[in-house]
Amino acid sequence: MGVTSVQSAAPGESHTTDAVIIGAGPCGLFAVFELGLLGIKAHVIDIQDKPGGQCAELYPEKPILDIPGIPVVTGADLVSRLMEQIAPFGAVFHLNEMADSLDQTSAGWRITTDLGTTIDAKVIVIAAGGGSFTPKKPPIPGIDAYEGTSVFYAVRKRDAFAGKRLVIAGGGDSALDWTINLEPIAERITLIHRRDEFRGAPESVERMRALVEAGRIDLKIAQIKGLEGDDGMIAGVTVENDDGASVIPCEAMIAFYGLTMKLGPIADFGLNLHENRIAVDTEKFETSTPGIFCIGDMAHYPGKLKLILSGFHESALMSHGAFHFVFPDKKLKFQHTTSAKELQQTVTGSAPAD
Amino acid sequence: MGVTSVQSAAPGESHTTDAVIIGAGPCGLFAVFELGLLGIKAHVIDIQDKPGGQCAELYPEKPILDIPGIPVVTGADLVSRLMEQIAPFGAVFHLNEMADSLDQTSAGWRITTDLGTTIDAKVIVIAAGGGSFTPKKPPIPGIDAYEGTSVFYAVRKRDAFAGKRLVIAGGGDSALDWTINLEPIAERITLIHRRDEFRGAPESVERMRALVEAGRIDLKIAQIKGLEGDDGMIAGVTVENDDGASVIPCEAMIAFYGLTMKLGPIADFGLNLHENRIAVDTEKFETSTPGIFCIGDMAHYPGKLKLILSGFHESALMSHGAFHFVFPDKKLKFQHTTSAKELQQTVTGSAPAD
Repeated sequence: MGVTSVQSAAPGESHTTDAVIIGAGPCGLFAVFELGLLGIKAHVIDIQDKPGGQCAELYPEKPILDIPGIPVVTGADLVSRLMEQIAPFGAVFHLNEMADSLDQTSAGWRITTDLGTTIDAKVIVIAAGGGSFTPKKPPIPGIDAYEGTSVFYAVRKRDAFAGKRLVIAGGGDSALDWTINLEPIAERITLIHRRDEFRGAPESVERMRALVEAGRIDLKIAQIKGLEGDDGMIAGVTVENDDGASVIPCEAMIAFYGLTMKLGPIADFGLNLHENRIAVDTEKFETSTPGIFCIGDMAHYPGKLKLILSGFHESALMSHGAFHFVFPDKKLKFQHTTSAKELQQTVTGSAPAD
Repeated sequence: MGVTSVQSAAPGESHTTDAVIIGAGPCGLFAVFELGLLGIKAHVIDIQDKPGGQCAELYPEKPILDIPGIPVVTGADLVSRLMEQIAPFGAVFHLNEMADSLDQTSAGWRITTDLGTTIDAKVIVIAAGGGSFTPKKPPIPGIDAYEGTSVFYAVRKRDAFAGKRLVIAGGGDSALDWTINLEPIAERITLIHRRDEFRGAPESVERMRALVEAGRIDLKIAQIKGLEGDDGMIAGVTVENDDGASVIPCEAMIAFYGLTMKLGPIADFGLNLHENRIAVDTEKFETSTPGIFCIGDMAHYPGKLKLILSGFHESALMSHGAFHFVFPDKKLKFQHTTSAKELQQTVTGSAPAD
């Protein structure tokens, strides 16, 4: 499987396209293909830093057995196969961004992301799976007052932590990796975890312990009890263990307490919901709002199963529904890919057999 | 891709199983997988001599580009991948047989094939694609009187033509292949075609011409005008060309005028039809008759696209519908194959990653 490059866009810019796909999981990726077959150009937004959704994030190494025609495939390999398959259609990816708001325009819809990117399109395709991966909040009283100013749950810009005294909280891979990664630029890092055992990769645990050994970072095994500071600016973290309570002075804290799946801003898009999923028809997988479609695990209809193979089918029928919004004056001529000469030349480098 | 053996059953016997799948195209094959995941055993009937349906019969070498996760695959390779994927579920295949009649029984349904095989099952899954490949009849007056006794449109038993004077009519691969194949056992073969050009593989044309050259068969370029004989037994074929009319004496004729797709006996199963297809719901892909399901190209519902990937999705939802007929007292516990430990052990030979 060849490496497929992702065409990424810088955040904060304005774009115009045919379709915006929210979610770069397997269904969102295959939607690029099915839309592309009908001549519909797409931009794809995903909060993660790479395409693949849960396949890439939750089970990259796990064998999946029910992708038709592929007896065994890992999540990561399925994503790489889909990226290869959609490559001819040149979708633009907006990674590390979250679709934040949806507004109707005279020409269709405008999506604005949390990083200020705007994309105008004729149709919106929600393929957001279980929702956004949202960080779990540590149960620390008063933490809300510091969120986004001096307490963070992810690293968006590494340089923002240069020269600072930093507390990193957590015991998994993210806490370990960012401790190792930020150590060279931070003034001082204290890693806080409630017990002296770490869930991360053994190699990362070793590297972190070597930094402690070398006196380059501090490791504190303790419970976080509270935060010191005012006006949103943290000044210290109060911790407690068998030795008693103490305060670790700092200018910023990053807490990695795991991820949870949330519907997120999509809940405010004004669409009919069914138990935290979006209600669609089974003809075009269109939501209660014309021009807005939903496919994959986030879609609800009678009989719905959360299977990747169902998302593929939903992509195909959705694309036929989307066609009439993108090309209102054109007649859709359905053809199988076995007769799609242009695609065959793109993919195989040669004309089809007949 | 390893060679997967097909578990075939001899015709004329009686069987009892959970589900009968009519049609061994890609959807019928994947239905074996989805039913198997839920513990439902299946028998598969197909009129062709091999699994694969149109993929195997009409475009085995043609690249298919819209199977999700497989950027390019030929029809033949897709079939072989599906056969590998369903191997753990041990379906029994009844090839070269046509589902001829459907009868309700106290326990469910009985399918009887044209070769007298009977299969009793709790559910029936019609995955018959465009229908049966049915031979086109040559436009010869009075041919009906000889059909099945001395005029045939296919070779079911090669030995039936041993020692006979045989007319083979047609200009495609089937006519050429059977001329070459039956020449050693027939008393004499005359190949009749309306013009001295053949649509078959160049190699077959060459081999046929070599047999003519060697005086081992006769080639007659002419139009067939009528048949001689009585009581269903042919005595000769009247032909005409620029040289005039003549009679070629024979005891049997096999005409290969191509195949057409017909709904066939399924039209008489008493199901609601929609323009020669079978109307189903989109929740369970069940027909108007409870316990009888239809998936793939033969199914009709609003938005239906005749795509292989849609048949895969339909297989999955159908299986959940079928479950309640097969195991009326069991509760269906939905699980992804990533957690189906038994299947993972079967397929990969090792336990899953976690």
